[in-house]
Amino acid sequence: MALNRLTHFPLCPHSRSIRLLLAELRLPHDEIIEAPWKWRREFLALNPAGTLPVLELQNHMVLCGTYPITEYLAEEADGLAPEIDRPPLFPGDSESRAEIRRLVDWFHLKCHQEVTRSLLYEKHHARAAGITGHTPNSDVLIASNRNLKQHLRYIGFLNDYRRWLAGDLMSYADLAAAGHISCLDYLGAIDWDQHPSAREWYMRLKSRRAFTRLLDDRVPGLSPPAHYDDPDF
Amino acid sequence: MALNRLTHFPLCPHSRSIRLLLAELRLPHDEIIEAPWKWRREFLALNPAGTLPVLELQNHMVLCGTYPITEYLAEEADGLAPEIDRPPLFPGDSESRAEIRRLVDWFHLKCHQEVTRSLLYEKHHARAAGITGHTPNSDVLIASNRNLKQHLRYIGFLNDYRRWLAGDLMSYADLAAAGHISCLDYLGAIDWDQHPSAREWYMRLKSRRAFTRLLDDRVPGLSPPAHYDDPDF
Repeated sequence: MALNRLTHFPLCPHSRSIRLLLAELRLPHDEIIEAPWKWRREFLALNPAGTLPVLELQNHMVLCGTYPITEYLAEEADGLAPEIDRPPLFPGDSESRAEIRRLVDWFHLKCHQEVTRSLLYEKHHARAAGITGHTPNSDVLIASNRNLKQHLRYIGFLNDYRRWLAGDLMSYADLAAAGHISCLDYLGAIDWDQHPSAREWYMRLKSRRAFTRLLDDRVPGLSPPAHYDDPDF
Repeated sequence: MALNRLTHFPLCPHSRSIRLLLAELRLPHDEIIEAPWKWRREFLALNPAGTLPVLELQNHMVLCGTYPITEYLAEEADGLAPEIDRPPLFPGDSESRAEIRRLVDWFHLKCHQEVTRSLLYEKHHARAAGITGHTPNSDVLIASNRNLKQHLRYIGFLNDYRRWLAGDLMSYADLAAAGHISCLDYLGAIDWDQHPSAREWYMRLKSRRAFTRLLDDRVPGLSPPAHYDDPDF
């Protein structure tokens, strides 16, 4: 394998957080797309859990999922990309890192379960997976959209009294949150006028160079709203 | 606070994995029970995510969820319990740790989503939470039980060619798996005769001293099968 390789899906929030991280780290890599609902035999041979993202490193390590990927990169970043700064993963002391990891779970588990998974399924994945006769479930849409408002308020609350979500420094907590928020924004699910503090945080992230490639992605049959790729939305 | 304190629920697989870990570490602590479906205001003040377990340390750290708890204990175990051996959390090099973390996700995310969460809800939580008119959903029970067989086969497969699930040494991957398997065994969901290799692994874990307290727990209105607390089942 010539390069590090990330297997991802453009509207997968977990994959997006790792793509942002790799871009922040400036770790050269190829990206290949896998539709997670296909359960392709070749993909299951790579990751028997069938989940995204998967990072294959030039040193032949195969890292399955955000948790093994981020903790491995935090331990080994110096060896992988010696010329760059300490990566924006888990900065600070062990108390700061516990807060970062709490927020990573908040977005990758709680926000995913309460919002992102359902909205992605109802608005994109069900149709993309060719499930015949699928119509979006309005009860699920209503509950998920109500939950989404709580998560945006929580981002706003954290942003009101910290510089970044977990503290003074940008961390993987911000990138995990951005993975979900950017998918939800692609779906047109966010009324930014109602959430000025969350918007300020997201605007700051979106204007970073690492965000560029992500905002260029499009999936067939579903266009994002006009403000989606505008850093000054 | 006089002691370290763990807030948990007896049939929560994530809590169980941490109770096993604290027992392996011989870290003195009190245990208090919280029913996660109650969303009590006082508990949400401790962990706004409303999830279990929560570990409050004597040094006033509050650690919410298995991910922050385990990574913090791995970093700080020497300071917390200086007299004991290196804890059985993430032994080995960074490649071994990536494998341990992959399997932690396998059980805490995949097995939970495909098996444990549904079976606990259908067979215990729905009734305990007082949901009126709840009858177990047979489609969900059938699908979850079918998935459970795959997870037991996977444990057997790993046990056939490794000493412990992630390698030569016991790790938190074993304790994460045991958190789920012990809940499922309490529910009487496992036909051990069909899974001799998984049984051998579980028997080895169950005979450890750290398991004793866990196996003594009972929840009102639901008794485990006779073999549940027998190490030679």
